[in-house]
Amino acid sequence: MTSKNLLPSWQPGLARDAILEFIERVTHPESLDFVPQEQRIATFDNDGTLWPEKPNITELVFLKDLMRFDEPRSLPIGAGLRQKIKHWLHHIHDELIEDTSLLIKEFRDGISTDEYHGWVSAWLEKAVHPRFKRPYTELTYKPMREVLDLFQQAGFKNYLVSGGSCYFIRPWSQQTYGIPPEQVIGSRLVTRLVDKPDGLAVEMAPVPWFLDNGAGKVLAIESQIAKRPVAAFGNSSGDIQMLRWAGTSPTSLCVLIEHTDDIREYRYSPGDDTLAAAIAHGWTRVDMLRDWQQVFN
Amino acid sequence: MTSKNLLPSWQPGLARDAILEFIERVTHPESLDFVPQEQRIATFDNDGTLWPEKPNITELVFLKDLMRFDEPRSLPIGAGLRQKIKHWLHHIHDELIEDTSLLIKEFRDGISTDEYHGWVSAWLEKAVHPRFKRPYTELTYKPMREVLDLFQQAGFKNYLVSGGSCYFIRPWSQQTYGIPPEQVIGSRLVTRLVDKPDGLAVEMAPVPWFLDNGAGKVLAIESQIAKRPVAAFGNSSGDIQMLRWAGTSPTSLCVLIEHTDDIREYRYSPGDDTLAAAIAHGWTRVDMLRDWQQVFN
Repeated sequence: MTSKNLLPSWQPGLARDAILEFIERVTHPESLDFVPQEQRIATFDNDGTLWPEKPNITELVFLKDLMRFDEPRSLPIGAGLRQKIKHWLHHIHDELIEDTSLLIKEFRDGISTDEYHGWVSAWLEKAVHPRFKRPYTELTYKPMREVLDLFQQAGFKNYLVSGGSCYFIRPWSQQTYGIPPEQVIGSRLVTRLVDKPDGLAVEMAPVPWFLDNGAGKVLAIESQIAKRPVAAFGNSSGDIQMLRWAGTSPTSLCVLIEHTDDIREYRYSPGDDTLAAAIAHGWTRVDMLRDWQQVFN
Repeated sequence: MTSKNLLPSWQPGLARDAILEFIERVTHPESLDFVPQEQRIATFDNDGTLWPEKPNITELVFLKDLMRFDEPRSLPIGAGLRQKIKHWLHHIHDELIEDTSLLIKEFRDGISTDEYHGWVSAWLEKAVHPRFKRPYTELTYKPMREVLDLFQQAGFKNYLVSGGSCYFIRPWSQQTYGIPPEQVIGSRLVTRLVDKPDGLAVEMAPVPWFLDNGAGKVLAIESQIAKRPVAAFGNSSGDIQMLRWAGTSPTSLCVLIEHTDDIREYRYSPGDDTLAAAIAHGWTRVDMLRDWQQVFN
């Protein structure tokens, strides 16, 4: 396989070269930078790195839709969630729906993770992005899926490390990204084990347990993977520490995705602190407008 | 490969048959109980299930040795730990050393997980079990290593789910059990990311974050693996919920290891609640004395 056939959605240029050269350096047996397969760990932010985060983070759109849910569609929801939705429908106002703390904590209280997974899958089958009018899972970035495939073929174990909840990504990560649920790390509420008549269930409690963002991403990687990534991809300030952590590996690739294309996607700054870190640490910067021939499939 | 060659350290009998029949049932493509490879998750308790937990839990022996450490051996410890040990040596009494909360929390405060890993590896090279006079990692149960191998060959992903800290097991789990660090789940202290002159470090704080025992084992499995195990092995009350959770899979193998052999190992009861659960749920019970031809290598 020649490098011409690799990453076909990428424009020839510095970013594409940096990725391909990195893969060659860490996998070629005679390379001085050779990395043994068990150390080939790559971590990827999700929102804004693998799929859009505008106009809103998809999980928040999902939670708002859930709260506005108006009986009875053919969605597989249990009695607990149905009752909860009825309660919310009668008691909430639109401004409350904008309260992300309510959305994330109180609304999920007592919902089992299995039930939540079922709802996510059902919602994703019907929901469409407000601007692109396509299902969200069809709107992952094609160039980044090529990167995931390239890394996997090169013997890497790819991990998703998201500021969103792991419970929102796990139902579709395997099919969409080729990443199994056990390689999805995310924010979490406290959970509790409940002995129900039909068996044991793991339910969410309205207590934040872990915020997988900023330094939290490093702590989660250390805690769950217990290996330092040699490659990391992110797009915002919540990814700075993860990219810095990967950057302390002897050989590493740290990539910042920059949203520069308001025609095909969105245009917004990663923030001054993120740009300063990218410059200070010499990260590879991806300019969506220039570096990607195609954004979506 | 005929079943005669499998699990050679096991006596022919019900326990060995149950394990071999389970593997056949879940892996044979035409079996009604066939389990696709991505769902083949097996979880194993460590202390008392894969190696001895008598006369003391090995990690506690390690921590006590560390506190009693009397300068300067050729162990790779950093200045922080060295200073801490000096402090403890001058201020502690033997009764304090018996305080496991001090051992587990305060003593590890400010120690980086990398430093802790290095110490564990160095200690294991020199420490010997007080009765068997052999290094601890040579005292894993041979029949259980055969089970780990059998499961791995059958396409299972084996996870260690220990009440002890993940930081104590990860340095040697790959070499000893064939289980990589990212498949080791254990108890944890809160960690913090520290910006040091020589780079970022993850340090432990003296605050318990997660106790991986009892219901905690199920919550950790749900949180990190996000799949229900189809096989689980344990030996004490801390494993009851994990075995019950595995037992809710349509096809499952739940195994209780019973310490019945005071000549070759130790003899003690798993506790009334554990036995009651084993009987109520029909778990496979392993009698070390009768079922194992050999305990150690």
